[in-house]
Amino acid sequence: MGNADCEVELQRVEVQIPPTKPFLQTLKSSLKETLFPDDPFKHFNNQPLSRKLMLGFQYFVPILEWAPTYTFQFFKADFIAGITIASLAVPQGISYAGLASLPPVIGLYSSFVPPLIYAMLGSSRDLAVGTVAVPSLLITSMVGKEVNPHENPKLYVQLVFAATFFAGVFQASLGLLRLGLIVDFLSHATIVGFMGGAATVVCLQQLKGILGLVHFTHEADLVSVMKSVFSQIHMWRWESGVLGCCFLFFLFITRFFSKKKAAFFWINALAPLTSVILGSVLVYFTHAEKHGVEIIGHLKQGLNPQSVSELMSTFGSTHLMIAIKTGIVVGVIALAEGIAVGRSFAAFKSYHIDGNKEMIAIGMMNIAGSCTSCYLTTGPFSRTAVNFNAGCKTAVSNIVMATAVLITLLFLTPLFYYTPIVVLSAIIMSAMITLIDYQAAIHLWGIDKFDFIICISAYVGVVFGSVETGLVIAVAISLLRVLLFVARPRTSVMGNIPNSMAYRSIEQYPKAIYIPGILVLNISAPIYFANANYLRERISRWMDEEEEKLKCAQKHDLQYVILDMGAVGSMDTSGISMLEEVKKIANTRSIKLVLANPGGEVMKKLHKSKIIDTIGQEWIYLTVGEAVSDCNIMLQACKPKTKAVECEAADDQV
Amino acid sequence: MGNADCEVELQRVEVQIPPTKPFLQTLKSSLKETLFPDDPFKHFNNQPLSRKLMLGFQYFVPILEWAPTYTFQFFKADFIAGITIASLAVPQGISYAGLASLPPVIGLYSSFVPPLIYAMLGSSRDLAVGTVAVPSLLITSMVGKEVNPHENPKLYVQLVFAATFFAGVFQASLGLLRLGLIVDFLSHATIVGFMGGAATVVCLQQLKGILGLVHFTHEADLVSVMKSVFSQIHMWRWESGVLGCCFLFFLFITRFFSKKKAAFFWINALAPLTSVILGSVLVYFTHAEKHGVEIIGHLKQGLNPQSVSELMSTFGSTHLMIAIKTGIVVGVIALAEGIAVGRSFAAFKSYHIDGNKEMIAIGMMNIAGSCTSCYLTTGPFSRTAVNFNAGCKTAVSNIVMATAVLITLLFLTPLFYYTPIVVLSAIIMSAMITLIDYQAAIHLWGIDKFDFIICISAYVGVVFGSVETGLVIAVAISLLRVLLFVARPRTSVMGNIPNSMAYRSIEQYPKAIYIPGILVLNISAPIYFANANYLRERISRWMDEEEEKLKCAQKHDLQYVILDMGAVGSMDTSGISMLEEVKKIANTRSIKLVLANPGGEVMKKLHKSKIIDTIGQEWIYLTVGEAVSDCNIMLQACKPKTKAVECEAADDQV
Repeated sequence: MGNADCEVELQRVEVQIPPTKPFLQTLKSSLKETLFPDDPFKHFNNQPLSRKLMLGFQYFVPILEWAPTYTFQFFKADFIAGITIASLAVPQGISYAGLASLPPVIGLYSSFVPPLIYAMLGSSRDLAVGTVAVPSLLITSMVGKEVNPHENPKLYVQLVFAATFFAGVFQASLGLLRLGLIVDFLSHATIVGFMGGAATVVCLQQLKGILGLVHFTHEADLVSVMKSVFSQIHMWRWESGVLGCCFLFFLFITRFFSKKKAAFFWINALAPLTSVILGSVLVYFTHAEKHGVEIIGHLKQGLNPQSVSELMSTFGSTHLMIAIKTGIVVGVIALAEGIAVGRSFAAFKSYHIDGNKEMIAIGMMNIAGSCTSCYLTTGPFSRTAVNFNAGCKTAVSNIVMATAVLITLLFLTPLFYYTPIVVLSAIIMSAMITLIDYQAAIHLWGIDKFDFIICISAYVGVVFGSVETGLVIAVAISLLRVLLFVARPRTSVMGNIPNSMAYRSIEQYPKAIYIPGILVLNISAPIYFANANYLRERISRWMDEEEEKLKCAQKHDLQYVILDMGAVGSMDTSGISMLEEVKKIANTRSIKLVLANPGGEVMKKLHKSKIIDTIGQEWIYLTVGEAVSDCNIMLQACKPKTKAVECEAADDQV
Repeated sequence: MGNADCEVELQRVEVQIPPTKPFLQTLKSSLKETLFPDDPFKHFNNQPLSRKLMLGFQYFVPILEWAPTYTFQFFKADFIAGITIASLAVPQGISYAGLASLPPVIGLYSSFVPPLIYAMLGSSRDLAVGTVAVPSLLITSMVGKEVNPHENPKLYVQLVFAATFFAGVFQASLGLLRLGLIVDFLSHATIVGFMGGAATVVCLQQLKGILGLVHFTHEADLVSVMKSVFSQIHMWRWESGVLGCCFLFFLFITRFFSKKKAAFFWINALAPLTSVILGSVLVYFTHAEKHGVEIIGHLKQGLNPQSVSELMSTFGSTHLMIAIKTGIVVGVIALAEGIAVGRSFAAFKSYHIDGNKEMIAIGMMNIAGSCTSCYLTTGPFSRTAVNFNAGCKTAVSNIVMATAVLITLLFLTPLFYYTPIVVLSAIIMSAMITLIDYQAAIHLWGIDKFDFIICISAYVGVVFGSVETGLVIAVAISLLRVLLFVARPRTSVMGNIPNSMAYRSIEQYPKAIYIPGILVLNISAPIYFANANYLRERISRWMDEEEEKLKCAQKHDLQYVILDMGAVGSMDTSGISMLEEVKKIANTRSIKLVLANPGGEVMKKLHKSKIIDTIGQEWIYLTVGEAVSDCNIMLQACKPKTKAVECEAADDQV
């Protein structure tokens, strides 16, 4: 209030309080923005009811939308792509089932029903459905902790179906409740570290197959696996090892060639099936199964049996909780992979994917899968990339793949009798190594150290702890970062950019000009409970430092503090108390508090809490420039009070 | 890239990338800003070593700082204040010990040692140290779940001392590690709701004393207490009830008078002691203890015995975990109250309190307390307010209080033999009812609905669940709010404010002018993993809507999208990918992406990730105004392409 007597009135644009809306309307619009950010029903506006129903049906079952325009040209492309991914699906299905400690045939079942469901409900044209390595491993580690898959295989399989069911229910409900934003909390850095760690762990697990070990640890961490491997050196089977290394070499070579030229992707896509065939033939003729090379053995012929009764029997059992817990964890991870993959390929062909709709599709296919002896499926990156490269046009490629798997299940399972486990291990290993994206980690280090820390923690957590530990640590650090950003917002002194009316941070623009007696501060985050105390202390420290500096320079006293609120997106009641307190602190020092550029949200709160009257509507400006020029005029009009004081340590205050 | 051929070069201020600092320097400065925001060691600069040591000693033991200047004038004021708070401390100490299910004498012990420690280490001049109701109740509910205080009182007391010890260690370490910001996460709304709920629960517990019930539930929630009270109506003692209501009425009346005139605060301050004396005299003469009025009975005479051996015996026991858990929870709550109270009264007398130093002081006094048979203490609001009103000058009033309690312990304990429990219940109730701050809740509803929800959830959680439940729910919702703010940042279209160069949200300034063909968007939050997907979708939806609108108006196509980054305080690698993708989306539609006013942090990231070259340094402007005027010049220079298309639903797109 110190300068009230020398106010100069200027005409200017007033900062406006946005028109107040009724509470329910505000609630509705903010709920809409939170849950329906993509406005999925905008086509429904102004349509007759029958058309709305039709659109609604098409919304949930996209095949109805594109099937009528499907052509034979499309089918040719989809057929080739479908056969290609089938050749990948069969060996991968068998391998990943082993990773989930399930009978190999369940891996084949899982490549039959879910792709059919997805083809009807999914909105991606490129996603190839199938089982994935990391969730498979997670299933072993989580369910396996409760029920040993070797001692009680029947119960274990039941629990895995139940987990798949709950994963599906969870995924579909996330989609229906439009809570897709949960998946967004798995940041890119988290996923890089987590996937890398999981791939490392999966590779380590393959040492069992490659070295032909019979006993192996049930733990997945590096230390346990290494102990297990090196404590039984005498049990290593060289036959198995040699075979494994050969196939690994073969798979790497094919990958290398296919990377060199895009047209060679066939080589890479067909390599797993080739390996399986070669391996089986080799074992058949050499009878290596009698010399320490384990083989798959008998695979049940026939289609997926129903598994509703298995599901039902789990619902009443004491193991229900572990099934639900596993379902939620693997469900989220599978979703994250499926949606990220779908979005990436949609971006290539520039069409749009609705994340929440995809969640419903993936959820439904897992629910259907869990009733037909399938375990968790999603859209794995490797298979989808092959599908895309093979030129798929629509989800029909999934139907073709399912048909190929159907034929395999009905007629070809006996052919896998002699397939050596070591080949499957080699297939998994070669697929996993590409997931260890060390270049991405280096990139993160270069750009954002915090992201790098998140990535490395996820990796270390997975490799040395467990898959869940790594995930939890990485998500916690990511959230901590967001909270820290809000808890410790950056405040900076601003100055005038020469030859303009703009005011910017002096740190960023060292040449910005600064007017003695007027302190312009920028606050770069919403003012919430988490930072209200900090901001109050920090602002009063800025004032201290400024006064100290001015004293030493023997210029004006500090008379105005202008807070640039442009970046303050929101404010809560703690923020309002903070402003009140800052106003009080300023008053006791006869400093005038001025606000510049408060946004709509902030103006509403200032108005409702009446603090706008404490500060004075006339002290709230549209721009920092106006505020400074008004303050400057008044500063010149009032006689500057200069004091001569001794300055002990003037130089270290700058 | 559509407009590259008609670029117009203008001279302008370039957006600067702040000078890059070495990694370690950045880390150091950001750690300093996070952990030492108040720069507590600024006086240490440029001082000789001996002076530094002296200052450091004074920093940790503030009494060394103010004791040399202490005067007899001060002592007179402190003496009166100290005696006043002692008259409150004795009955409150006995009452709250009952709330914590401890022998009453421990309440007196707790008003002797901790105040002495605080007087030496604390930096507040007004804080009066003592036990508090809510943490006392929490101790009963948490430790009581593990060990029944009536069946195994010795072990229970041991565990409470251990919990106090861990609370002290936790508090002191928070202070030493400069992690005071954890307390900031208890928002004002959380504290209002939580305190109100806890006060309600504490009041309900007093029904036991007031109704003279012998058996009572160990649960604290409303439902259990009501069941317990109404299931034993036949056990109610009217003598006790009448006495309780009389004293309650007396206490309310005195509060009413003291509120009417500030000078009457004495009446309120002395009322509890008066009640105790009156009650004891009444019982002594009427022998009411034989008619259903319970009395305190024998209080052990003598000073605090040491309790180190009790602490030691807990460290090896199986109950250690519950002691640690209880210690952490009550430690945080006690800290929050102590620091908030200290800060509020410091603001009245405008001196500064260092939160982290206070934590060390409160922590040390609890550690010392736990070794001398005291339980958890902090700075309760009621006692501090009385201290302040009685005109205390320094922490010496705490020493006076401790001395008065010492005398009570040595000589006066027999006087409390006939004190009726019902009087203590009335004292607790009357103190608690002021904590139910319904006006604050109404205020929250008026200003911020989300804060109101947080407050009510805390209240409901405490009253119907448990004290911990309420706290966890409220903190979780508070954090959710911060995360939601980041996950769903507000984007808004901006227009030019007439007669100025400023661009502001059209929602807030409906008169802002908007140039067809140039879409100016404001992003009001940091771009992090949690919102990168959302922002990409939302920005492309803004473009869709804008194109639709322009088509219908048959004006220009949309040619420029200007993102105002002024409020984007920070960015992670997901944010960078988001910008890359938005750039791609814009390219496929031949729209030019322009950035305006990116801050220092953002420019650093753009530069490091090389995305600055993808966007083009020349498309990054200092202000939105410059960006728009440049784009407008180019828009006029290039021939506008106008298309005539049918618009079905033009009116509902606005």
